[in-house]
Amino acid sequence: MYNETLLMMPGPVPMPESVRNAMTKQAINHRSKEFGDCYADIVRVLKPVFGTKNDMLVLSGSGTAGQEAALGSFARGKKVASLVNGKFGERLGQIAAIYGESVMIESEWGHPLNLEGLKEALENGAEVVTLVHNETSAAILNPAEEVGKLARKYDALFILDAITSIGGDVVETDKWGADVAIVGSQKCLAAPAGLAAVSVSQRAWDRLSETRPFYLDLKKAKKSADGNPMETPSTPAVPLFLALREACRLIEEEGLDNRIARHHKMSAAVRAAGAAWGLAPVPQVDALHKASNTVTGFFYPAGIEDSQIRGVCKKMGIEFAGGQDRFKGKIFRIGNMGIIDTPEILATVAAVQMAFKKAGYTLEGDGLAAAVEVLSS
Amino acid sequence: MYNETLLMMPGPVPMPESVRNAMTKQAINHRSKEFGDCYADIVRVLKPVFGTKNDMLVLSGSGTAGQEAALGSFARGKKVASLVNGKFGERLGQIAAIYGESVMIESEWGHPLNLEGLKEALENGAEVVTLVHNETSAAILNPAEEVGKLARKYDALFILDAITSIGGDVVETDKWGADVAIVGSQKCLAAPAGLAAVSVSQRAWDRLSETRPFYLDLKKAKKSADGNPMETPSTPAVPLFLALREACRLIEEEGLDNRIARHHKMSAAVRAAGAAWGLAPVPQVDALHKASNTVTGFFYPAGIEDSQIRGVCKKMGIEFAGGQDRFKGKIFRIGNMGIIDTPEILATVAAVQMAFKKAGYTLEGDGLAAAVEVLSS
Repeated sequence: MYNETLLMMPGPVPMPESVRNAMTKQAINHRSKEFGDCYADIVRVLKPVFGTKNDMLVLSGSGTAGQEAALGSFARGKKVASLVNGKFGERLGQIAAIYGESVMIESEWGHPLNLEGLKEALENGAEVVTLVHNETSAAILNPAEEVGKLARKYDALFILDAITSIGGDVVETDKWGADVAIVGSQKCLAAPAGLAAVSVSQRAWDRLSETRPFYLDLKKAKKSADGNPMETPSTPAVPLFLALREACRLIEEEGLDNRIARHHKMSAAVRAAGAAWGLAPVPQVDALHKASNTVTGFFYPAGIEDSQIRGVCKKMGIEFAGGQDRFKGKIFRIGNMGIIDTPEILATVAAVQMAFKKAGYTLEGDGLAAAVEVLSS
Repeated sequence: MYNETLLMMPGPVPMPESVRNAMTKQAINHRSKEFGDCYADIVRVLKPVFGTKNDMLVLSGSGTAGQEAALGSFARGKKVASLVNGKFGERLGQIAAIYGESVMIESEWGHPLNLEGLKEALENGAEVVTLVHNETSAAILNPAEEVGKLARKYDALFILDAITSIGGDVVETDKWGADVAIVGSQKCLAAPAGLAAVSVSQRAWDRLSETRPFYLDLKKAKKSADGNPMETPSTPAVPLFLALREACRLIEEEGLDNRIARHHKMSAAVRAAGAAWGLAPVPQVDALHKASNTVTGFFYPAGIEDSQIRGVCKKMGIEFAGGQDRFKGKIFRIGNMGIIDTPEILATVAAVQMAFKKAGYTLEGDGLAAAVEVLSS
């Protein structure tokens, strides 16, 4: 694809030209109206995208920084129940262990959450619940609303990692009772990597930990954001803020509903392709758990190596993700976050089909035709 | 100045066009040779700029993140002696208090350090010493070499915040025995804000804290950087890495010695202007403590308001810094970090002189002529 690899990853994702160009602006003083207006613009657009009226803070750090800001600010010394059915759920539990007492409630990766285990942990005094909404490592969409209800029932704080769903799928932070929700810039928002936005409820502020990290202290971030102009406690990554503002403008222009519908359609096309090919999807769905609408994962059939599919497609100029940790070499994952649309899905599905053919593997059916049918609807 | 304010701050600073344009590149996979090569290029250039052969890690966060990474990784549960003669020295002490037992050894802002107090703290069991090399809040250059000798004599770790000196002044991390040294991207390196580079000695690794922060864990950063390709533990702010690589290329092109000589000359010109004007410099120098070579600070004479000088210059299109915290409204500070050269110094000195005239204040002599003399030499 010209000189550029088409990134079909579950982040980072291709950025619109205007988002990239926004970064070329000469340095500005970050304690200025100019920067404060940029920060305010981002917050104004992101609140409805999060489905929240809570405070919204933008941190100069990755989604992991957002996770740690949440746990470091609200979980110190507390019992934290972390629901785990993939790598990122596990990471939240690992961070929780640094600040409090971490109880990981694990399922197989990509399998439904152990909600009975969560109930038990809450009955045993867990004060904080963490959940990854869209667990990209296993391409599964977890039932945030149900988890929120349980957390509220036991009066626990609910920290929702929606890093890879916000901006591409339905997220209702307030309705679901998420006291903290987190998004990463380089996922469905289609901005460069390096920022995390975090929403915080009054209920969370009321339970603020006394000792908190310094750089990732959400209290300090709120104090600076409450100023006029809006500021950050330490020097922000200004070019990334400028890029995120432009990405937010494009989200407004498209309309959130249209954007979510597009993400749903693109992932449905990839799922349809996989079903036609006869490949086993990674997520085990049920009434509460769905396949992700922003990344789609399949197991490789026996005898097929990662390099035969992902490696071959990468050489063509299309890069998607393999499996992480225990899934390494066993699965492949096609992202459709941000600005990914019909042409990119067509190219990717066709390339995968071509790679299987090249590998001498006979797929059950025509995945490309199945994808085309979804995309034409 | 056209449409652009001339930033004469002690960071952020104007960026060369090629540095800004480096950020427009389309998103790339950060787990790739392409990203790893970028990271490796930065490290290759920065090691001699730090004066170190130690490990070099780049973090996606501000200089404050670099400070916390150092203290969070190496100071947990330890007694930390923090030398304070300005705002940033104080900040290191505040961060130290989160992780260990903080002992702040304070002088008046801009006055020489209390080295006797440091000796006492070391005799009383301090295991870590923190110092801000170039304390911008008071425009003073602190004696890092002497502090390093003391720390080594008592076998304490030495954490050196050289955020605003590295790349613009002489820093000899290894010779001075700094176990950890820190730089920020938006200071003398003239890159965008949002990255910190941290060097770590073997002596520091041998004393790694068992529990460390997650996002700012230097051990994890080293493990990822030791890979092939070089990586970061969580998603890095890729556009900022690309910009920093280009900024490093420009440092190589200019040559470190030339760059430092330029910074020395520019600050000498501003100091000469202030002396001719008859303004009192902020730093109290002595045999060990010097005026900063990257930012120059003066007290306002009685009866002159910040708005009459800084405000007026800002309206002309030239922005420099006022005082922070206890120095608010009392001082002004002119930075000369990064690519600032003769034209910018001339414009700024002339503008300040003009503002004083406009305020009806009679300066002692012609500061602009004094600056010109230094710049012509």
